[in-house]
Amino acid sequence: MDRPVEPGHFSACEARLDKHMAGLCSVDFPVAVVLPAGGSGERTGLLTPKQFCTFLNRPLISYTIQTFERVPWIQSIVVVVAKESLDLMMDIIHRFHHRNVLVVHGGSTRHRSIFNGVRALSEGEDGTARVKPKVVIIHDAVRPFVEEDFLLKITMAAKEQGAAGAIRPLVSTVIATTLEGYLDHSLERTKYRASEMPQGFIYDVIYQAYQRCSESDFEFGTECLHLALQYCGTNAKLIEGPPTLWKVTYKRDLAAAESIVKETLSQSACVVTGGSAQATELANALQRSMSALDMEVDVISDLIGDNAKSLSKEWNFIQLSVNSSCFSEVGRILGALEEADRALLHPVVIIWVYLNVSEDGSSASEPTGGEPAAMMELATGAKLGNILVYGIQLHHSKEATLWGRSVEKVAQMSCALIRDRSPALTGQLLQA
Amino acid sequence: MDRPVEPGHFSACEARLDKHMAGLCSVDFPVAVVLPAGGSGERTGLLTPKQFCTFLNRPLISYTIQTFERVPWIQSIVVVVAKESLDLMMDIIHRFHHRNVLVVHGGSTRHRSIFNGVRALSEGEDGTARVKPKVVIIHDAVRPFVEEDFLLKITMAAKEQGAAGAIRPLVSTVIATTLEGYLDHSLERTKYRASEMPQGFIYDVIYQAYQRCSESDFEFGTECLHLALQYCGTNAKLIEGPPTLWKVTYKRDLAAAESIVKETLSQSACVVTGGSAQATELANALQRSMSALDMEVDVISDLIGDNAKSLSKEWNFIQLSVNSSCFSEVGRILGALEEADRALLHPVVIIWVYLNVSEDGSSASEPTGGEPAAMMELATGAKLGNILVYGIQLHHSKEATLWGRSVEKVAQMSCALIRDRSPALTGQLLQA
Repeated sequence: MDRPVEPGHFSACEARLDKHMAGLCSVDFPVAVVLPAGGSGERTGLLTPKQFCTFLNRPLISYTIQTFERVPWIQSIVVVVAKESLDLMMDIIHRFHHRNVLVVHGGSTRHRSIFNGVRALSEGEDGTARVKPKVVIIHDAVRPFVEEDFLLKITMAAKEQGAAGAIRPLVSTVIATTLEGYLDHSLERTKYRASEMPQGFIYDVIYQAYQRCSESDFEFGTECLHLALQYCGTNAKLIEGPPTLWKVTYKRDLAAAESIVKETLSQSACVVTGGSAQATELANALQRSMSALDMEVDVISDLIGDNAKSLSKEWNFIQLSVNSSCFSEVGRILGALEEADRALLHPVVIIWVYLNVSEDGSSASEPTGGEPAAMMELATGAKLGNILVYGIQLHHSKEATLWGRSVEKVAQMSCALIRDRSPALTGQLLQA
Repeated sequence: MDRPVEPGHFSACEARLDKHMAGLCSVDFPVAVVLPAGGSGERTGLLTPKQFCTFLNRPLISYTIQTFERVPWIQSIVVVVAKESLDLMMDIIHRFHHRNVLVVHGGSTRHRSIFNGVRALSEGEDGTARVKPKVVIIHDAVRPFVEEDFLLKITMAAKEQGAAGAIRPLVSTVIATTLEGYLDHSLERTKYRASEMPQGFIYDVIYQAYQRCSESDFEFGTECLHLALQYCGTNAKLIEGPPTLWKVTYKRDLAAAESIVKETLSQSACVVTGGSAQATELANALQRSMSALDMEVDVISDLIGDNAKSLSKEWNFIQLSVNSSCFSEVGRILGALEEADRALLHPVVIIWVYLNVSEDGSSASEPTGGEPAAMMELATGAKLGNILVYGIQLHHSKEATLWGRSVEKVAQMSCALIRDRSPALTGQLLQA
């Protein structure tokens, strides 16, 4: 069978392990994750296996890896991929700066792949022994939204009981069919559950189960919990999980996953006023309107000193300017975001809002001819770094109703731009 | 139990019935549909029951009703709703011009609601007899994407066997749990199926099954096929359905449903050139670029005579103009779409592409100052009628690379505008 590649990654994991074992969380033993990612994706109706399908510029599997990287008490992540996807996987790890990830070749079936991953946790490519984890979590590369508290429940139950698995209520009635394709009987829904991922095992339990199981289990089996029961006598503890455990199976599920990520990314924006009274007034009005549209808005005058903290939050930015272009300000935000690698995992939106105030209250002047072109150039460069820059222009009005309508429009457009994140529309100077 | 409301709707169905029975399709007997829509939507995590959740300006249940209205051999649709949703449901039927829909009060459980719907097909509100259908299809309001050919299979099998139901392979392993929450055993996946909707029944079979079944069946049962087997000895024929039968259950499923509808709506655009050579050249270039982006593009010079047929297709429009505003052309498309009620069920996109050609090849002039404002006004009015108007401006260049880049940008922006359908961005004049 195939052996792990990139053992170099692994020593780093072992080093991190001690650090975390001394940590504060209740998990005071080493935990690793195996992510089988060898599926061919037949059911999505797409050419690319679904774990490698991309939304918001990033493949699904990278979202799943990130989920585990965020959990401080998980020491290492083993991804099991088909041989033909190995280069692609290494490229993804490199591009999105994933750490503590070991990539292992898959086997010809799901169980063979998982066993390869499990074995790589205690055995080096050359057969040398490694410090095996106490508990191993087995998950799917195509279930990106599992949460830390649920992983904790599975891990603790696995440690105590030897095995634990997520279950969900059945969505449909399950029926048995006759050989001729007729209804034989239907199962009583309350007595059965759907077995989902993640599952957790004491390392020795799952390792032994795989060593003892038959070729037929390797070939046709699907359920790790079943192997633990049959070959190690370990009855898994079953824990009801949240609906977010769901598995990306069809093309439509990719749209659903994208909508979940977009919603998370679109909840907050930081408005930078530059300090002028007019900009501050506009910022406060925007804050009210955008809050009503479910966006959390923070107003700051600049990004200097303590305010620079905003750059490290998962926020989008709205830079205001009155009667003057503020490409230097936008450029400063851009530079700071790039330096902090803020757009590595998710696109970030910057909206430049240009407030046009004419002294005499008459028809206000447009920004000078060069601005749309400069704006487009800035945005084109930013897009290469996964930062989406848009502009909105509005005219000041002394008439309260008109002014209120303009502000409302800026709020709506900003929310739409942040939510949609359309790469094709970056660099546009929109009118409110 | 509750009785049907709005019997007036019903006589229309009976009248249509004769017409269709004489039709060409293989279904030469009357077929009706019952759509239980009384769910409370707890699982979506939304306040509105999911069948009434809206995407692209229309509630989910209207998409499902439309699916059945498109099938010529289905004579009538009974929607069963909770009492508190009755007004909302009548409003939806009115707003989206649904025909042949009878609305019935739901009961306290799913089976009671379905029985109310089934009974309303043979009994008027006042107890008078109605011409009952031969076959009744039972479906869910929250499965909007069922296709005609599958409905035909279910209907024909129901007529022959007395009952038929859709099945799907199990997505997860099904397990039995012990009382203490441990794994008891897992089911062999190949022997079981998930029972889905639609299901079809000879009217008398399902009617009798409901008349004979117990209070406990009404209270706790979920499976109509099971009642037909138990009380009428009818073994349902099981037919494997496509993944599109899936049920909108969670909030994320609404995003998935929206993406499916958007994809369907975003496949084609009709470019209207106005006849000039320069516009025709641009149109042909756009056709090439947009085809590469999976958009079917038709080029016509105007919408007069035979070309007017394009207005009745499910297409979006791109109106080109060279060196002149073409609000009158856009206005004409708008008027024609409104007259044909084209935007009743789905928003339609019109993009005005303004090609700026300067005689001397120097920096081209902007459109006159009034145009952005006039454009916004036009778009604001159109939006009320569910038509989304956007503008794109581009400058002609004699330099082939520059020109090619501009055309490519118009193509990309047009595809993005048609795909995203953002109401907040209508009326904008974008730069290519």
